[in-house]
Amino acid sequence: MSPHERVRSVLETQLVQRAVILVIVVNAVTIGCETSAYLTARIGGLLHVVDRIALGVFVLELVARLYAYRRSFFAEPWNWFDTLIVTMALIPASGPTSVLRALRILRALRLLSVVPSMRRVVSALLAAVPGMASIIGLLVLMIYIAAVIATKLFGDIAPERFDDLPRSLFTLFQIMTGDDWGNTAQTVMEHKPWAWIFFIVYILMSTFVALNLFIAVVVNAMNDAEPSPAETETQAELRRLKQDLAAVNAKLDQLLTHQNGHQPRPRTPV
Amino acid sequence: MSPHERVRSVLETQLVQRAVILVIVVNAVTIGCETSAYLTARIGGLLHVVDRIALGVFVLELVARLYAYRRSFFAEPWNWFDTLIVTMALIPASGPTSVLRALRILRALRLLSVVPSMRRVVSALLAAVPGMASIIGLLVLMIYIAAVIATKLFGDIAPERFDDLPRSLFTLFQIMTGDDWGNTAQTVMEHKPWAWIFFIVYILMSTFVALNLFIAVVVNAMNDAEPSPAETETQAELRRLKQDLAAVNAKLDQLLTHQNGHQPRPRTPV
Amino acid sequence: MSPHERVRSVLETQLVQRAVILVIVVNAVTIGCETSAYLTARIGGLLHVVDRIALGVFVLELVARLYAYRRSFFAEPWNWFDTLIVTMALIPASGPTSVLRALRILRALRLLSVVPSMRRVVSALLAAVPGMASIIGLLVLMIYIAAVIATKLFGDIAPERFDDLPRSLFTLFQIMTGDDWGNTAQTVMEHKPWAWIFFIVYILMSTFVALNLFIAVVVNAMNDAEPSPAETETQAELRRLKQDLAAVNAKLDQLLTHQNGHQPRPRTPV
Amino acid sequence: MSPHERVRSVLETQLVQRAVILVIVVNAVTIGCETSAYLTARIGGLLHVVDRIALGVFVLELVARLYAYRRSFFAEPWNWFDTLIVTMALIPASGPTSVLRALRILRALRLLSVVPSMRRVVSALLAAVPGMASIIGLLVLMIYIAAVIATKLFGDIAPERFDDLPRSLFTLFQIMTGDDWGNTAQTVMEHKPWAWIFFIVYILMSTFVALNLFIAVVVNAMNDAEPSPAETETQAELRRLKQDLAAVNAKLDQLLTHQNGHQPRPRTPV
Repeated sequence: MSPHERVRSVLETQLVQRAVILVIVVNAVTIGCETSAYLTARIGGLLHVVDRIALGVFVLELVARLYAYRRSFFAEPWNWFDTLIVTMALIPASGPTSVLRALRILRALRLLSVVPSMRRVVSALLAAVPGMASIIGLLVLMIYIAAVIATKLFGDIAPERFDDLPRSLFTLFQIMTGDDWGNTAQTVMEHKPWAWIFFIVYILMSTFVALNLFIAVVVNAMNDAEPSPAETETQAELRRLKQDLAAVNAKLDQLLTHQNGHQPRPRTPV
Repeated sequence: MSPHERVRSVLETQLVQRAVILVIVVNAVTIGCETSAYLTARIGGLLHVVDRIALGVFVLELVARLYAYRRSFFAEPWNWFDTLIVTMALIPASGPTSVLRALRILRALRLLSVVPSMRRVVSALLAAVPGMASIIGLLVLMIYIAAVIATKLFGDIAPERFDDLPRSLFTLFQIMTGDDWGNTAQTVMEHKPWAWIFFIVYILMSTFVALNLFIAVVVNAMNDAEPSPAETETQAELRRLKQDLAAVNAKLDQLLTHQNGHQPRPRTPV
Repeated sequence: MSPHERVRSVLETQLVQRAVILVIVVNAVTIGCETSAYLTARIGGLLHVVDRIALGVFVLELVARLYAYRRSFFAEPWNWFDTLIVTMALIPASGPTSVLRALRILRALRLLSVVPSMRRVVSALLAAVPGMASIIGLLVLMIYIAAVIATKLFGDIAPERFDDLPRSLFTLFQIMTGDDWGNTAQTVMEHKPWAWIFFIVYILMSTFVALNLFIAVVVNAMNDAEPSPAETETQAELRRLKQDLAAVNAKLDQLLTHQNGHQPRPRTPV
Repeated sequence: MSPHERVRSVLETQLVQRAVILVIVVNAVTIGCETSAYLTARIGGLLHVVDRIALGVFVLELVARLYAYRRSFFAEPWNWFDTLIVTMALIPASGPTSVLRALRILRALRLLSVVPSMRRVVSALLAAVPGMASIIGLLVLMIYIAAVIATKLFGDIAPERFDDLPRSLFTLFQIMTGDDWGNTAQTVMEHKPWAWIFFIVYILMSTFVALNLFIAVVVNAMNDAEPSPAETETQAELRRLKQDLAAVNAKLDQLLTHQNGHQPRPRTPV
């Protein structure tokens, strides 16, 4: 066994796998604790030490994996994912409240790559995305068009909602989720009573497209699902029928052979 | 018939079953009435007496069941459920408005274990849970990560929403249900205009995962559903085909026997 | 042709059917117009006359139907529906704003019984209800229990939401629809910080049960749906297979007859 | 090759198709930029020029298509769609903030007719509409009836919600989407405590009908979906069975021919 293979076999033991999961969970908890001023004041030092150790374990494990799998390390997208997360954690954060410090908790996402059932779920979710591309494109186009129209027509009336294009996009996304659209519409309708046409058409269309997006995912999932008990039974039945038919065929061959004076005939393939 | 069996046969009569259901419903109504100050002032004594009697019936029925089924009593999870509920009712409540007194109404849940159709529905609902475990885990992880980030980034800006981790978890759960998220987001965006990225990514991702959770349940339910009329018809058709083929096979056996000079041949199993 | 049959054949002509539909629609529009003070002031008399005429037509058509179908009139539930609606319209309303006057528009529901495609849709919707009974029962039980608990625990804190049982039931129904639950929960949590447990458990459970209610309807609808093209194709293929097998069987019979010296044998049924 | 065919072949090259898509996207972006006062002040002239050029390209492409396909141009509904959009863009807008100017962004909808995958999605969405007609009719009837009742009963109490029929229709549509219905209901219930009956019945019924609308679409989509792997497998199996049976039939024919003294018999069609 080469040293590479030895490292690999160690990495693949259940003990090491579980240890890594434990470190991820503990680290997620300590980062969570750091959001509490009370806990930081009391056990801030300890939390920091645990954080450093966890980061060390992550780096060590990643380097070990890189050493063990060498080239094939980069063939696995999940390894890229882990590398990205660990690298991000190594960039020094400038101030105490910087965005980067806040994003440290993204390390907990490593659970996705380490726990096999999580990996499967995430892969299944990602696999559903390409089939949705066209409908998502349609939805984005629809929101963009509605946002341009709303900015031009309602920008002066309800500036806190439709002042400029980004704000309109945000408002229309919010309306699509059905959150508080009535108030927005009524504010606008005080000045432009016909504005209900815009809002109702937009809500009906975006809901209908979103619904079809949803249906596309369901139909996909149905097709990828295991065959139902009824289908499994049908196929078993068909296999039995085929065996019976093969028996019939064999007997006919026997009859024909006999009839033709024991001259062996080429068997019809069944 | 042993005394155990006699008690069991009495418990299993429809009359006793219906009486128990009646007592549960009446008790649920009287506990409901006790929430009304008006009714408590007028018929509070009566309500209390009915409550005591109902509790007595529950205890009696449970003891009878324990006597009747002995060991096998504990093999049935629904019996544990009933025991738990009745035991909880027997713990003396210290004050008039204590939580335990409020939870007395949980006795009405005994309807679930007594009415067979309810039992089936609850069992079906519980059976769907294990298949959802991975996606629920993913959802919880996602909310936790988002809550840590939100606490760190928005804790100072919107303390009534993201002050500490528990509050952020609550707010993000609320946002996931689509309730009033626009206001929360706009409060934050007044100070950090780029915060829409956080909210929109979070809403899209949590909705997408929740949607897939939902789909997993649907696909499961579909598979467990009875075969559709079309499938039933297909299988009946296949059975008929199989019978026809068996007839064909039998005739061929006849032909072969004849041809081979009445020497009985081992029958090919069909 | 008896006079009954003659009336029946007149009632079933497309002309009469369409005339009735027209009267229903016109009446629905005039009742709608009566909600406008402006229109009532101008053409109130005309609206009233049209309303009287429409009512007359309804009564006349109903009497004609009763005369035409006699006994079998009462066998059709839709006729009961029409009779109920027309009878309600004949009860004199005491004041100008009485509830009964407002309910006159329910006459427009007669469209459901007159237009065949509407009739089918409503029948399909009603057919889905019995299958949902158990889950609806579970949902009602859950809301009732939660309402009793909420009234006892939160009645003093948020009286405008949980003052008495009816109000709590309303609030919890509202929370189940996801409308504005965050505010209600936060009001309560100011005094009882642990109240989030109640709200989150209630939301998760009621959503989960409502979801399964929904799934039960979908699975039902799927099963009642026409067979998919794939299933239709499978069944056509099976029929063809059966014909082929029948041909095989016939030929075997021929062979057997020949072999047995033209003695006709009882045919094996295929 | 006629000049018509030459133009057609040029139009159908991928280069031209992509150029048109590029012009549509660029034009959509420039119209979006025009909503920004900042950008209009700086590069307003440029934006205007690009807009004119894009419009010129659209007109040119449409005329070329008309020249290339002549009669068959009008057989394709998408061409009518493009013509409508381009024509609308040519109508001179009277004022700077007119509705027509705002609707210029609708040109971006040309993406739907130019990108094939978008075309398919939109066609699929439109194909689902006729099957939904009856349920949509039922929903509209329900909202209309509820609006008339609400205007008459609650018009005086909550004029900002149920003042006249159009306002009631809007409010009830809003309630159906679940937006902020609790407040509306509570405002009304302060004066008419029994109003909860109206709101809860309306919400339950409209949700149930909307749910069935949704299910109709799902069931349709399922039926139109490609056969599942299990169904494909079943059908392949059936085809193999049929071939086997054909072989059996052929052998029987051979046997029969032999037996009947080489007199060719009409072959039973398989």
